[in-house]
Amino acid sequence: MTTTTNTLTLDVPAGVPWIDFTREFDAPAAAVFEAHRDPAKVRQWLGPHGYEMDIDHWDFTTGGGYAYAHVTDHGTFGFRGVFHTVRQDEFALQTFEFDGAPDDVALEFLWFEDLADGRSRLRGRSIGRTVEGRDAMVASGMEKGMAEGYDRLDDLVRC
Amino acid sequence: MTTTTNTLTLDVPAGVPWIDFTREFDAPAAAVFEAHRDPAKVRQWLGPHGYEMDIDHWDFTTGGGYAYAHVTDHGTFGFRGVFHTVRQDEFALQTFEFDGAPDDVALEFLWFEDLADGRSRLRGRSIGRTVEGRDAMVASGMEKGMAEGYDRLDDLVRC
Repeated sequence: MTTTTNTLTLDVPAGVPWIDFTREFDAPAAAVFEAHRDPAKVRQWLGPHGYEMDIDHWDFTTGGGYAYAHVTDHGTFGFRGVFHTVRQDEFALQTFEFDGAPDDVALEFLWFEDLADGRSRLRGRSIGRTVEGRDAMVASGMEKGMAEGYDRLDDLVRC
Repeated sequence: MTTTTNTLTLDVPAGVPWIDFTREFDAPAAAVFEAHRDPAKVRQWLGPHGYEMDIDHWDFTTGGGYAYAHVTDHGTFGFRGVFHTVRQDEFALQTFEFDGAPDDVALEFLWFEDLADGRSRLRGRSIGRTVEGRDAMVASGMEKGMAEGYDRLDDLVRC
């Protein structure tokens, strides 16, 4: 029996503006992809615990775009971007902007990969405009929010 | 009398995936912006000398996108991307993909700034997915192609 650890691994190398991450799931890549494509599913997992996810639009296709807000007790935080490429069950590439840091846009690569035994791996690279901006994003608690979101995604695709 | 040098300046720092550049023009920011917005104008300046520019679509607006090809004696080279933000006479942010390096997409920031005496400055940052990819792009003769394109843009906005 293999012991699997479905936890988020973040790699934040010094001196470059990107973050690499991986997260495995007990579900095929197609299910994890579908949880990214369907806004009704996205709404259930994306973001930290305890936030309400208000999706303005979500068109997970090449040339499409998205805008959503996290509604919290301490304010509303808006996010928007465009999808440069979306390839079913394989790959997505999007821009990402937080309205608290306008024009400080990141580029995010997502690779969906099947593993053995019906499991899969999500690999990502998020590249910020500057090293300082990336460092600020990490310092803001990004890892906790991502980890909580992927925990909910895990529950969702297991069903 | 001020001596002005309308030449491309490229900054390629070691160990990071971006390229910074600046180019000044003897025309206001609005004219340089318009030469980026209007595909009939873009067709006249973008790319190295001697290439035919075949634009499939060019929608220089927030959420829009573009695709074009450089048709040359030694082949056709396709490019496409999406515009995350376009703010008139000020700012544009787009993705950029060369079909010879699929998924190796760059994020490009352009700032249009007025200077004194009807002149302006274009500042850019192009961020690749990897340092190696950026280095390969520079090695491929990117600077010459950019410089030639901006020379033609200079002629266009002077008129």
